[in-house]
Amino acid sequence: MTDALETYLADNADRRFSSYLEFLRIPSISGQPEYAAACREAATWVAGQLGAMGVEHVEVAETGGHPVVYGDWLHAPDAPTVIVYGHYDVQPVDPIELWETAPFEPFLKGDRVIGRGSADDKGQIHIHLRATEAILATRGGLPVNLRFVFEGEEESSSIHLDAWLEANRERLTADLAVISDTGFFEGNRPAITIGLRGICYVQVDVATTAVDLHSGGFGGAVQNPANALAQMIAALKGPDGRIRVPGFYDDVVALTQADRAAFAALPYDEEAYRTALGLSALVGEAGYSTLERRGARPTLDVNGIWGGFQGDGGKTIIPAHAHAKISCRLVPDQEPRTIFELLRGYVLEVAPPGCSVEVHYLGGGRPSLTPIDHPATQAAARALEATFGVAPLYIRDGGSIPVCASFEKILGLPVVLLGFTPPDANAHAPNESMSLANHETAIRTVVAYWDELASLPR
Amino acid sequence: MTDALETYLADNADRRFSSYLEFLRIPSISGQPEYAAACREAATWVAGQLGAMGVEHVEVAETGGHPVVYGDWLHAPDAPTVIVYGHYDVQPVDPIELWETAPFEPFLKGDRVIGRGSADDKGQIHIHLRATEAILATRGGLPVNLRFVFEGEEESSSIHLDAWLEANRERLTADLAVISDTGFFEGNRPAITIGLRGICYVQVDVATTAVDLHSGGFGGAVQNPANALAQMIAALKGPDGRIRVPGFYDDVVALTQADRAAFAALPYDEEAYRTALGLSALVGEAGYSTLERRGARPTLDVNGIWGGFQGDGGKTIIPAHAHAKISCRLVPDQEPRTIFELLRGYVLEVAPPGCSVEVHYLGGGRPSLTPIDHPATQAAARALEATFGVAPLYIRDGGSIPVCASFEKILGLPVVLLGFTPPDANAHAPNESMSLANHETAIRTVVAYWDELASLPR
Repeated sequence: MTDALETYLADNADRRFSSYLEFLRIPSISGQPEYAAACREAATWVAGQLGAMGVEHVEVAETGGHPVVYGDWLHAPDAPTVIVYGHYDVQPVDPIELWETAPFEPFLKGDRVIGRGSADDKGQIHIHLRATEAILATRGGLPVNLRFVFEGEEESSSIHLDAWLEANRERLTADLAVISDTGFFEGNRPAITIGLRGICYVQVDVATTAVDLHSGGFGGAVQNPANALAQMIAALKGPDGRIRVPGFYDDVVALTQADRAAFAALPYDEEAYRTALGLSALVGEAGYSTLERRGARPTLDVNGIWGGFQGDGGKTIIPAHAHAKISCRLVPDQEPRTIFELLRGYVLEVAPPGCSVEVHYLGGGRPSLTPIDHPATQAAARALEATFGVAPLYIRDGGSIPVCASFEKILGLPVVLLGFTPPDANAHAPNESMSLANHETAIRTVVAYWDELASLPR
Repeated sequence: MTDALETYLADNADRRFSSYLEFLRIPSISGQPEYAAACREAATWVAGQLGAMGVEHVEVAETGGHPVVYGDWLHAPDAPTVIVYGHYDVQPVDPIELWETAPFEPFLKGDRVIGRGSADDKGQIHIHLRATEAILATRGGLPVNLRFVFEGEEESSSIHLDAWLEANRERLTADLAVISDTGFFEGNRPAITIGLRGICYVQVDVATTAVDLHSGGFGGAVQNPANALAQMIAALKGPDGRIRVPGFYDDVVALTQADRAAFAALPYDEEAYRTALGLSALVGEAGYSTLERRGARPTLDVNGIWGGFQGDGGKTIIPAHAHAKISCRLVPDQEPRTIFELLRGYVLEVAPPGCSVEVHYLGGGRPSLTPIDHPATQAAARALEATFGVAPLYIRDGGSIPVCASFEKILGLPVVLLGFTPPDANAHAPNESMSLANHETAIRTVVAYWDELASLPR
């Protein structure tokens, strides 16, 4: 880092911390319709930041859903052009009662900024905003050309992004996409994510009668939707952790010996991981290590289940309906829509009599895998090592960033997943947090990365 | 009926209807602590009514929970003494959004009084109040001696009633207990209930981590409490509808040929029953008819299930915990506590690894069966036929009134279950309703019943 840049960052530390919290205070939950205005407010906030620092063609672009924030700076003629992606939307906050403080009233606790979006992904957009601002303020120009694409629907399956990318394909010319929506490895070890799982998210609705029935007067005569739902969910996985949906594994690319060796080589203490989670055992698909299961094998998890009486005490009813949200994490080459059809077919097949069952597609995204030896990946590795002081690990993350496949397929770009959240960030959970040290160092990493990319042979 | 009594009832029709609605407006939900004051208000209301009509020794008796309302009239020296039982507490109201109107703002729609408690069981207490009042007002005395015992915890397992009955055994001398908390048969056919199922109500709590986990970052590595709960629930019943808990059926008294013949002889249109419920099929334990399954065979039903995200859209979490309320209806000679221990043991046995599971007893009650040929039962049958114009059916109801066993075991009394609610009353469900015609005629039935009992040879 140049002295000028460090001086600028030091001089603006308070303002930077304030703008981080200001961004986090906007409750931009994309999945809940009542927060649509807040999503738009977050988009406008980001656009305002980009415009103020000198980024050009800044636009809050309509998509049919929550807008995309676009902006570019294209005055480095001999340097590569990078699309920088992040998302300004966040996950819902419930169970709200488990938060230490209100999720949209962020605060600093030790090294951690606690609040919804502090890590996933507003914190990472903020890193890019402040890095770009610092370079422009101290050098008057960037070492590379940047196109910012910050979307607002990542947490609700990026419903409108693909169409927007398609429609803007001409102007989105670039050499590379950098997605900052991932994190570091256990022990907060710097890492570059080279693989992401896809996702297929469904809702199962089971219904019987128009109203709840008295469990005494009707029990034994009628189907119980909650029992039926439990039966269907139980049928989806075997005791060996294998998903029983016929055809589910057909498109899964088997792990090679080299893949398995790479997983085995990661500095991973399974016992420490288990203990930190407070679990009596780690469980999953037989025949695979924990890292393989969570990074490179598909899953099926209930994300939510409900039906009937949930209050204190007892209520002796047979619920009229019961519901579950279920999602599968997918690995190459599983297709979300194909998996949905298989899953739907099997759920209907195992549905017991006397109830009606519907399975709805709530969204999905393809899995992705990017090469370690790409020059842009290696440049990112050098930037991480120069700023965090340690060479990054290469990891396959179990999460899903469907947009990764979109940049690859629609724009034909290589993708580098450069993210900075600590592994215990509680993303999607109460008390989501971001390490302020990671956040601050990451600003330097981004600057170093653009410099590394600019120095690559063209 | 005497002309004087009919004239009195006609003259007081408006006041009677008003007092019925007034009683229903008190939200006396016994299972939810926030309604404790309302339960007490309902008790005070009933006591006030008894006192005003000339019933003596009226008392709102403390039990440690919601009070028992006691009162007696004992000036018929040569006549039998009857304990009249009802309960002034009601079920919770959710799902509140399915009510046509607020559950505690009762109103008349056609022949139906709609509101929580209109049928179960405030409506039936009100029948007794108005019948007693009418006799005392027109004759100056009752044909039998009555002791009213109206409790406030029937919908939460009558937790304190047994202790109160034990403590008051000396003063509760009687010849008979009449419980008005049952109803008529399909098609609103007058019926006397000769059998009731018992109940064992539990809650299953499954927990893993302190907070929800990101289903991408952790999916495949850890147990999912909602999947685990579904697996446990599914294990409780086989595809033949038999409950798989070892020992569950050990104490079940098998149906005799005569029992089965009596069920088969009831005027029951299974197809009409199924159609009225809007179901594609009636389901349950293999080898038994629908009436047998709901009246004389034990059940296992999920009354409520919850865990994780229940909002619109998607949230990609592995819930930190999941829960179910589960109850079994019991038949002679199953004991609630024995069934609880068997159920708890089996749930823990089938619990998958990597989660903690707890099973809590929320309450229970014994099943009961009373003889058809008891003179008091036959007197009730004559009173029903005289007032409703048709001989009653003898039925075994699937519901549970644990206090029935309490009167038999603690006070050594024969019990007659004389109730008047229509079969489609939506007891325990939204839009609970009572036929006003049943309610009005039942007042005459009660008067006729006391006269019948008074004329029995002593």
